[in-house]
Amino acid sequence: MRKLIVQKYGGSSLANPERIKNVARRVAGYRKNGHELVVVVSALGDTTDELIELAAKISRNPPEREMDMLLSTGEQISVALLAMAIHELGYGAISLTGSQVGIITDTAHTKARIVKIEADKIHQELKRGKIVIVAGFQGMTPQADITTLGRGGSDLTAVALAQTLRADECEIYTDVEGVYTTDPRVEQKARKLGEITYDEMLEMASLGAQVMQARSIEVAKKFDVPIHVRSSFSDKSGTMIIREVKNMEDVLVTGITLNKNESKITICNVPDRPGIAAKIFNQLAEGGINVDMIVQNVSHTRQTDISFTVPKPDAARAVKLTRKGAREIGELEVLQDDDISRVSIVGVGMKTHSGVAAKMFETLAKEKINIEMISTSEISISCIIKKKFSETAVRALHAQFGLDKGK
Amino acid sequence: MRKLIVQKYGGSSLANPERIKNVARRVAGYRKNGHELVVVVSALGDTTDELIELAAKISRNPPEREMDMLLSTGEQISVALLAMAIHELGYGAISLTGSQVGIITDTAHTKARIVKIEADKIHQELKRGKIVIVAGFQGMTPQADITTLGRGGSDLTAVALAQTLRADECEIYTDVEGVYTTDPRVEQKARKLGEITYDEMLEMASLGAQVMQARSIEVAKKFDVPIHVRSSFSDKSGTMIIREVKNMEDVLVTGITLNKNESKITICNVPDRPGIAAKIFNQLAEGGINVDMIVQNVSHTRQTDISFTVPKPDAARAVKLTRKGAREIGELEVLQDDDISRVSIVGVGMKTHSGVAAKMFETLAKEKINIEMISTSEISISCIIKKKFSETAVRALHAQFGLDKGK
Repeated sequence: MRKLIVQKYGGSSLANPERIKNVARRVAGYRKNGHELVVVVSALGDTTDELIELAAKISRNPPEREMDMLLSTGEQISVALLAMAIHELGYGAISLTGSQVGIITDTAHTKARIVKIEADKIHQELKRGKIVIVAGFQGMTPQADITTLGRGGSDLTAVALAQTLRADECEIYTDVEGVYTTDPRVEQKARKLGEITYDEMLEMASLGAQVMQARSIEVAKKFDVPIHVRSSFSDKSGTMIIREVKNMEDVLVTGITLNKNESKITICNVPDRPGIAAKIFNQLAEGGINVDMIVQNVSHTRQTDISFTVPKPDAARAVKLTRKGAREIGELEVLQDDDISRVSIVGVGMKTHSGVAAKMFETLAKEKINIEMISTSEISISCIIKKKFSETAVRALHAQFGLDKGK
Repeated sequence: MRKLIVQKYGGSSLANPERIKNVARRVAGYRKNGHELVVVVSALGDTTDELIELAAKISRNPPEREMDMLLSTGEQISVALLAMAIHELGYGAISLTGSQVGIITDTAHTKARIVKIEADKIHQELKRGKIVIVAGFQGMTPQADITTLGRGGSDLTAVALAQTLRADECEIYTDVEGVYTTDPRVEQKARKLGEITYDEMLEMASLGAQVMQARSIEVAKKFDVPIHVRSSFSDKSGTMIIREVKNMEDVLVTGITLNKNESKITICNVPDRPGIAAKIFNQLAEGGINVDMIVQNVSHTRQTDISFTVPKPDAARAVKLTRKGAREIGELEVLQDDDISRVSIVGVGMKTHSGVAAKMFETLAKEKINIEMISTSEISISCIIKKKFSETAVRALHAQFGLDKGK
């Protein structure tokens, strides 16, 4: 059957001429089998970081419109080179920038949102038998200013195109073979998942799994675009991210994530009266700091401790802002602890099963791991523990929830 | 007086962040004095060559449309960085790609011709008080494909913009201080010319002077756009390229050029009958080889020699094609000589003065330099000599025509 396939290749899949040729061979292979292809690419290797460094040498605070003008060249280089590599194999290909496709965004430079995608140009080129190569991560405002979509923007381009074009498949190629039950570098027994739901993937992404950014999964979920995450270095099938997994109810936990990039901040002896938390977290929000987990215990006295986590690079600034807020309340002590990690279990199955949390705490207790903070969502449970116990915790939970045995 | 000034900065003026900041300071200085500025930039330093090398690793014969997609990123990086650097100095600037300006070209990728320039966007941004930074060397077809203008394309962008916008001045910034009577590396006494005519500059450009490409001078001449060629590393005024120089008639020779990058090819004992030269040069033309000087002596016998010069990189291929043609005529000997150079004198004054050629030959004879080929145009005389005499010839002619003494 002739299919319309949207594929996206990340920077590591395009890091050098050999890899670009490898991607071209893969794309040509699909074309040879009669499929129509729209290929979205990121910037080669570390190009984006290099351009950011270059800008930093010119200005400490470059205008965002000009950053977008600069960064969008990265993907433009990729589309041109991939189109050349495909031509070299004897297949017709045409490269298009985000502007040329007609990916219309709002004017929020460096983190623009897609407003609509004009599909005419792509349909026209597909009809002419071309493989269409689209620069990911970028679009343009209605005034024809170039915009970029922020982190994970190329995935977003691919998902949005798959939706707009009503593609039969949306493949996200990366340097890992799919989504794993946990990080294989931490637990060798980690298994590649055949399927995972949007919700689980969203939860895992926000808890630290780096396969895909949450944003593009949200869009895929919204429009019900099935995503196939797989490796550009292998022919094995990867992981399907879909609405519902068949044997969903049988599995309590789908994956385990580990995040070592957060710091814990604790405000001690906070007076137990309304408005205090609001004051402090408003201050952090105004400072542009993304607070993650927040835990406040019920108080038996008139005082309580409030703990929260922030990304480690923001920790020093967060402490400063918190101390400022704390001073306005009273002379409260503010502590920072970088020596922590967050281990989380994720699974839609836990919606309908009780006892999953208890099993998690029990498992950690058996390993003599103290839990410093606990936070839960409908389909995940996270514990903050001392960093040195990270790997032990992941392995113990991986075994306890039967993840090494397969679904 | 408030002026509208078009400036163009070449790659060497933008080779690193310090130089970009230097250009920004210069541009800001003009803005501070109340002028309106449209600044055209080339790609940073060797960016274009690096992109060409990258493409060569992917394909030996990349599609030209994709080359343009690739190469146009070079200027896009430049405009973004220069706009940032100007912002950093507290002035408003906006970068525009060729497409965003509306530089409409034909579809001859890698060597497109400008069809028209939409000036609305630039006027609009100037009215908003912005310094407008335009990516040189690029445009787009009516179908919105990105094109590039070929060698010297950024100069062409500047001259065409100066014409379209009716700019008061068009400044071409480069790494030399202007146009010299001859190459200062060859003759220390070379003088910077205050003025030179379009025709002389055209002749000097085509004879090897590398300040500006002939193409943009032709456009400047056509629309009578005065060009100021000057250095971005100095505040001194440079050379004005204009229609008529006041004291034109008094000066026989304006400049002397030297070109060491040609080879001489001679076909010996060519039968003296019609159609032979046509046959051979058609073959070269079909091979895409640009033949430069052609000399054929009148023949006293039924045979003659034909000599011509080609760019050195094309010489081997030219000899092969010539031998092929020669075989069809008879077994003619074809000789290649790389050990030559061309020295030329240029000046509109020689239009109205006789004896200039004689004086040139006499000067060379005095230095015991043998002349192998002679060719003349209305305002230039070129001699092919042995390469080892190049510098001696230039210096002798420079002195003989009084170029070290000033106009």
